Amino acid sequence: MFHLHFLKITVSKHIQDPASQRLTWNKPPKSVLVIKKIRDATLLQPFKELCIFLTEVKNMIVYVEKKVLEDPAISGDENFGAITKKFCTFREDLDDISNRVDFIICLGGDGTLLYASSLFQESVPPVMAFHLGSLGFLTPFKFDTYQSQVTQIIEGNAAIVLRSRLKVRVLKENWEKKARVDEKGIILTNGDIENSRKVVQYQVLNEVVVDRGPSSYLSNVDLFLDGHLITTVQGDGVIVSTPTGSTAYAVAAGASMIHPNVPAIMITPICPHSLSFRPIVVPAGVELKIMLSRDARNTAWVSFDGRKRQEICHGDSITITTSCFPVPSICFRDPVNDWFESLAQCLHWNVRKKQNYLSSEDEEF
Amino acid sequence: MFHLHFLKITVSKHIQDPASQRLTWNKPPKSVLVIKKIRDATLLQPFKELCIFLTEVKNMIVYVEKKVLEDPAISGDENFGAITKKFCTFREDLDDISNRVDFIICLGGDGTLLYASSLFQESVPPVMAFHLGSLGFLTPFKFDTYQSQVTQIIEGNAAIVLRSRLKVRVLKENWEKKARVDEKGIILTNGDIENSRKVVQYQVLNEVVVDRGPSSYLSNVDLFLDGHLITTVQGDGVIVSTPTGSTAYAVAAGASMIHPNVPAIMITPICPHSLSFRPIVVPAGVELKIMLSRDARNTAWVSFDGRKRQEICHGDSITITTSCFPVPSICFRDPVNDWFESLAQCLHWNVRKKQNYLSSEDEEF
Amino acid sequence: MFHLHFLKITVSKHIQDPASQRLTWNKPPKSVLVIKKIRDATLLQPFKELCIFLTEVKNMIVYVEKKVLEDPAISGDENFGAITKKFCTFREDLDDISNRVDFIICLGGDGTLLYASSLFQESVPPVMAFHLGSLGFLTPFKFDTYQSQVTQIIEGNAAIVLRSRLKVRVLKENWEKKARVDEKGIILTNGDIENSRKVVQYQVLNEVVVDRGPSSYLSNVDLFLDGHLITTVQGDGVIVSTPTGSTAYAVAAGASMIHPNVPAIMITPICPHSLSFRPIVVPAGVELKIMLSRDARNTAWVSFDGRKRQEICHGDSITITTSCFPVPSICFRDPVNDWFESLAQCLHWNVRKKQNYLSSEDEEF
Amino acid sequence: MFHLHFLKITVSKHIQDPASQRLTWNKPPKSVLVIKKIRDATLLQPFKELCIFLTEVKNMIVYVEKKVLEDPAISGDENFGAITKKFCTFREDLDDISNRVDFIICLGGDGTLLYASSLFQESVPPVMAFHLGSLGFLTPFKFDTYQSQVTQIIEGNAAIVLRSRLKVRVLKENWEKKARVDEKGIILTNGDIENSRKVVQYQVLNEVVVDRGPSSYLSNVDLFLDGHLITTVQGDGVIVSTPTGSTAYAVAAGASMIHPNVPAIMITPICPHSLSFRPIVVPAGVELKIMLSRDARNTAWVSFDGRKRQEICHGDSITITTSCFPVPSICFRDPVNDWFESLAQCLHWNVRKKQNYLSSEDEEF
Repeated sequence: MFHLHFLKITVSKHIQDPASQRLTWNKPPKSVLVIKKIRDATLLQPFKELCIFLTEVKNMIVYVEKKVLEDPAISGDENFGAITKKFCTFREDLDDISNRVDFIICLGGDGTLLYASSLFQESVPPVMAFHLGSLGFLTPFKFDTYQSQVTQIIEGNAAIVLRSRLKVRVLKENWEKKARVDEKGIILTNGDIENSRKVVQYQVLNEVVVDRGPSSYLSNVDLFLDGHLITTVQGDGVIVSTPTGSTAYAVAAGASMIHPNVPAIMITPICPHSLSFRPIVVPAGVELKIMLSRDARNTAWVSFDGRKRQEICHGDSITITTSCFPVPSICFRDPVNDWFESLAQCLHWNVRKKQNYLSSEDEEF
Repeated sequence: MFHLHFLKITVSKHIQDPASQRLTWNKPPKSVLVIKKIRDATLLQPFKELCIFLTEVKNMIVYVEKKVLEDPAISGDENFGAITKKFCTFREDLDDISNRVDFIICLGGDGTLLYASSLFQESVPPVMAFHLGSLGFLTPFKFDTYQSQVTQIIEGNAAIVLRSRLKVRVLKENWEKKARVDEKGIILTNGDIENSRKVVQYQVLNEVVVDRGPSSYLSNVDLFLDGHLITTVQGDGVIVSTPTGSTAYAVAAGASMIHPNVPAIMITPICPHSLSFRPIVVPAGVELKIMLSRDARNTAWVSFDGRKRQEICHGDSITITTSCFPVPSICFRDPVNDWFESLAQCLHWNVRKKQNYLSSEDEEF
Repeated sequence: MFHLHFLKITVSKHIQDPASQRLTWNKPPKSVLVIKKIRDATLLQPFKELCIFLTEVKNMIVYVEKKVLEDPAISGDENFGAITKKFCTFREDLDDISNRVDFIICLGGDGTLLYASSLFQESVPPVMAFHLGSLGFLTPFKFDTYQSQVTQIIEGNAAIVLRSRLKVRVLKENWEKKARVDEKGIILTNGDIENSRKVVQYQVLNEVVVDRGPSSYLSNVDLFLDGHLITTVQGDGVIVSTPTGSTAYAVAAGASMIHPNVPAIMITPICPHSLSFRPIVVPAGVELKIMLSRDARNTAWVSFDGRKRQEICHGDSITITTSCFPVPSICFRDPVNDWFESLAQCLHWNVRKKQNYLSSEDEEF
Repeated sequence: MFHLHFLKITVSKHIQDPASQRLTWNKPPKSVLVIKKIRDATLLQPFKELCIFLTEVKNMIVYVEKKVLEDPAISGDENFGAITKKFCTFREDLDDISNRVDFIICLGGDGTLLYASSLFQESVPPVMAFHLGSLGFLTPFKFDTYQSQVTQIIEGNAAIVLRSRLKVRVLKENWEKKARVDEKGIILTNGDIENSRKVVQYQVLNEVVVDRGPSSYLSNVDLFLDGHLITTVQGDGVIVSTPTGSTAYAVAAGASMIHPNVPAIMITPICPHSLSFRPIVVPAGVELKIMLSRDARNTAWVSFDGRKRQEICHGDSITITTSCFPVPSICFRDPVNDWFESLAQCLHWNVRKKQNYLSSEDEEF
């Protein structure tokens, strides 16, 4: 009589040492994309310094978005002009740089990393993000010592946190019909309608938000998991977020905070009508789908990392799964310390004044 | 110029299809442990029926705890007496049955599964749990059709959810010294003190709770993650739970609910003094440690799945990691449907009356 | 030596027996305003029945809004036509009925009572509200026994709950300038600007909501209490509600629920960026003011009981105090029982399945 | 046709200008009770200074508790000894000083004010509370300028906040029987049992807490309001608090924060088993009663401002109403500013780092 080893799966597969993910180069990196927040005068000098350092000292090929260089504060700087001629430039949505850059440097706030993410719909190069002012969740590096920090990355000596993204597909039914009706008031034939589906895909680093938009009505959407209807969301909306996004909009809506190394998707209602609608966390492997409820009296709106806001009508669907293309985010120290540092700095998590609110007989007041 | 594949780790490793975990037997199962809630008269008849079915019809070797058979309602039943002679019996904490049973059947509430878990400090056989009254989180099977259900399990046709457990080690410093001082008032020498460490280990399915016990003072404990002090908990206490435990005490303390297939550990403060102390979710791979804060004015108390409650003094530590020995819990349908069914039934999650609280000009009241 | 009675104010003044507020008529009531939800076919028959009963049996003068009678389902009913000729009709915003009706009957959901409230900017007659389908917070009466219920009210035998309202003044600075600039692009002179203030006043029964409207930016508004800046709200917005409104949008945003007899104003942030921004409850006597923060990068939007949505720009202000004109809401039983009944029915407040999540050694699983 | 003034009650009665409560003396105050936290060495020097100032400069009669003077650090100070001879002393629970002191000065934390409250079961003299270290909710005065501050109070120039208290009566059924059975094992006759009721009454400034005490079982208590069963609390317990207490234990359990001028009672569950059990706020005029549920499997424990912890058995009841004897708490500035100052200092309420978590297309990252 003995215990049969009935299962091949063991839990050790689940357990991954977060400290083991490190950046290692197969070949030395040669190209770097520099992303700079636009219209922030305080970033100009650091941006120029960094670009000169990368180009002149490190002999890197620097990629910069065209519109960054068109900023008069940059194009008007003659000294810097000579350097910019060495840059490779590109235009968002027009030029494909997906396989051209070895790593990315961001200057100026969590928004720069969301933007970097949006540039790469498939594999994303490792990102080193500097905050110039206050620490962000996604920008762990201080600029003071950028030279030694960048050198270390180029040498391949850094911890990495793989920030999972969500792959989101929006299926618009009859979108041409709607469009044409809107424009010309002509009803298309059935045959046309069948051809008028449109699917758009997004890679999302923080969250997909479905909300009531400018309407005063509650939104009313059905939530499916692996094909099963699991619940209906009645309220201001619903947030489907990555662990990275759990500390963004989701936390404001009441979610617990999830470390980016947890392979999970978080579902958080926004001001739900039901008292018992607590946020839930589901495994990274599932497929979620959101549609308007049959009895929804008005449409909903969806946005992706706060961008590309669009209306969702009856019949449309939003399908969400964990993407195969995470954002490799370079750590300042390591995934654990960086995260708790940002919880304290960005959210004042459990910052307390020591005090006892319970007195007792023993305490002798 | 091309993007280097700098990392061997890909996120696909994180993504596991929850539906793929199924019970498959290498050899047909021959022995079964039947666990019954004690002193619940409504369970007697089902228990007897089930045991007769397993022994007579299925020719299984049935293991039963000795004290279950000592219940007068069972020992006094002459008809059933003949069957019980075929049973293998054991005593908790005295007899080792860890490699003797092929699977477990529980009758009567989530507590039976917590108890089953406590019997197996290492590998746990698959567990089939019946609720007799209302559905529990851990007891998905109805007893009505137990014969076909059990037959199906014996034939190896079932989905499994691997419920992770926490391996908890409690290190009591100077415990002998304390004990001796308590008993005899004698202070031990240094040499003795060094020998007076005691380590006890537990496997926990729901949660480890550290709280203020009978004291009216706030508890004051330090929380370490992989050796780093991450925060100090000031309040009624702190819950370290598995995803399974997220729907138990943790949810009452305000946690989000985590599907058991997410490899994570949840940390939830109990009535924290700080408004900003939101629960957090960390990866399954980390090591947590809890100790009294240096300036804690009184001790704390720890319990494991609600059992083995004990005091924690200055210098003692509680170390918590994800166990290598999960509890394979047999699903009624599958891990996703079972979970959402229990959320609805046990927690009334998002059970609503449809109503619009926002009126609007368009609504025409 | 003795204790001086230093204060004339005693707390007994605060304590009002909620059961003591009862409807008593100085003269028998002669006129009744009937409010009906529009475009709900299920309400037609009850509406007609009620109106016939009030007119024919009770000899009341029935007031009905003109557009209600213009509904083809009513105007096309010849039998009912004769009765409608006896009605007094009025048009919203055009005809003043403020001192003409002795009480109000609402048919069809909380929205009808919000609408009734909006018709009376000063003193409000007592309101008797029927729900036809599911119970609402503001509609405690079932229609089944409407005849005896209405008779009882006419006889002056009923408990009343005085639902406080908020008096809200919106001050638009330079609104003409804005309007003109928008229209013609002409900058007005200083003199004109001074004349271009506009103040609008509202009576609100549930809440004033200030939110980010269609913008994706956080709203950023300053909150003043009796002239002092008490905090800045950064998030989706802020709700200033009456106790009645505490169970509407505010509860969805996380507020505690306040009985309508508590003289208080509730301030609830909507998805605040700060983890520690818990809702607060201030005394009914204070004056609140909300303005855009100086560094707000975009405008905010305000609405009143979900209506009259409008934009708030830099310099505009919203001033909120407890109104002198509450809504006397007739109770089905009494203020306490009605409230707890609606908490249970509308919000499933503390509806539970009895279960023990904590097991213990004593429990014997 | 006109609107009848059917109700004599108007809402203006509810609205009380909080700024209007001011301390005014009918006769100049002559006696002062000084309360000092025990065993805190940092308080010795301020205590002595203050007592000398009150006695020598202000010619006040100083009342001090006997055990305070028995502290060796005070009794051993020869210089101070001469002054102490002028003090009036008293012993807690033995000597009645209820009508002897004109006002109270507290040194050292919120606990001192809770203690002061417990000394006065009926009318309470105005209290001036100094914090020596960090600001407390109940201790608004800094000690630096105590001389001018105390002088101002003596001259009767100060704002007051009347902090409501709860009058709590605990009725122990058969308590003698229980006591005797415990002691001697003798069952009393019926006649004796009828005589064995015991009622004890408390005045509570923060809260009454009913919890599961040292038990691992959930507590299970019924909550009545004005004689009606309104709900059953299943969880760690329940807090019935004053507005003052809303910022103490209740806030840790998830309550909204209520300004002390709101005439209300707050009911907050502690880790309730039900997701929908949100805290509620009821009017100051109601009577609450708490009893063990009939099916409660074990007892509960009750405490009063963290003191006098005792067990509650089947049949016992706890009756709670707003007391007629509030604590007049002297303001540093005024009730509004003091409260918001303490929210910020003690709870870090809405202390934020300005940051935008929502990015948008317009934001240009």
